[in-house]
Amino acid sequence: MDNILSKIVFNQDGLIPVIAQQYDTGMVLTLAWMNREALTKTIAENRMWYWSRSRKQLWQKGETSGQVQQLKQLILDCDLDAVLALVDQEGVACHTGRKSCFFNSIEGGPIEGVKIKINQRQIVPPEKLYGEQ
Amino acid sequence: MDNILSKIVFNQDGLIPVIAQQYDTGMVLTLAWMNREALTKTIAENRMWYWSRSRKQLWQKGETSGQVQQLKQLILDCDLDAVLALVDQEGVACHTGRKSCFFNSIEGGPIEGVKIKINQRQIVPPEKLYGEQ
Repeated sequence: MDNILSKIVFNQDGLIPVIAQQYDTGMVLTLAWMNREALTKTIAENRMWYWSRSRKQLWQKGETSGQVQQLKQLILDCDLDAVLALVDQEGVACHTGRKSCFFNSIEGGPIEGVKIKINQRQIVPPEKLYGEQ
Repeated sequence: MDNILSKIVFNQDGLIPVIAQQYDTGMVLTLAWMNREALTKTIAENRMWYWSRSRKQLWQKGETSGQVQQLKQLILDCDLDAVLALVDQEGVACHTGRKSCFFNSIEGGPIEGVKIKINQRQIVPPEKLYGEQ
């Protein structure tokens, strides 16, 4: 990767944050992380690969659940330290069975009184996503 | 902040990544970082405050340039470790004078041949954003 991609700024853990956005509706689906290998595999395969910080391993989005993200376009920001991925999400992005991981809406105020309201319904039961293979 | 917001997961540096998305067009504008104080001020003032990792200080988006982000809605993700902020961006979000910071589109392939193509024009000359006050 001896080209413009070599200028990408990974953090001290070798990772870069990646926003996945549904390419046609504009819905922001996930914020996840890539290392250089995940980025390379994503570009090579046109499917999203990430680095799991909890499992400390590469994973192809949807490899277990079938809810893959097809890559449409990758866009780096001005500082080359964040990525926006326009994707086509198969099914749901969230392990809770919701389309997007961003469903905990902060409502009300002032600060002492704010509450979180879930603003998306589950489309797929989670046990169906991660049941026996 | 002794409520649901106390469950938010900040990283080892006390920060959480925040995606700012233009509330009506769906354009992803920036990925920036908040500490707890920035989040508190954002909710209190309905304007976006961030933590500058380079300058190591709180900053209100647009305090120098005038390009403020009015907060419309804050949404936490399933893991409570990332924030999506729906905002109304005054003028341009990017210090380069572009609407969004995500303008370096990765084009072509295979990997060895990819190039970055700038996919947004400058709306405001940067010197106008950060000129003499």
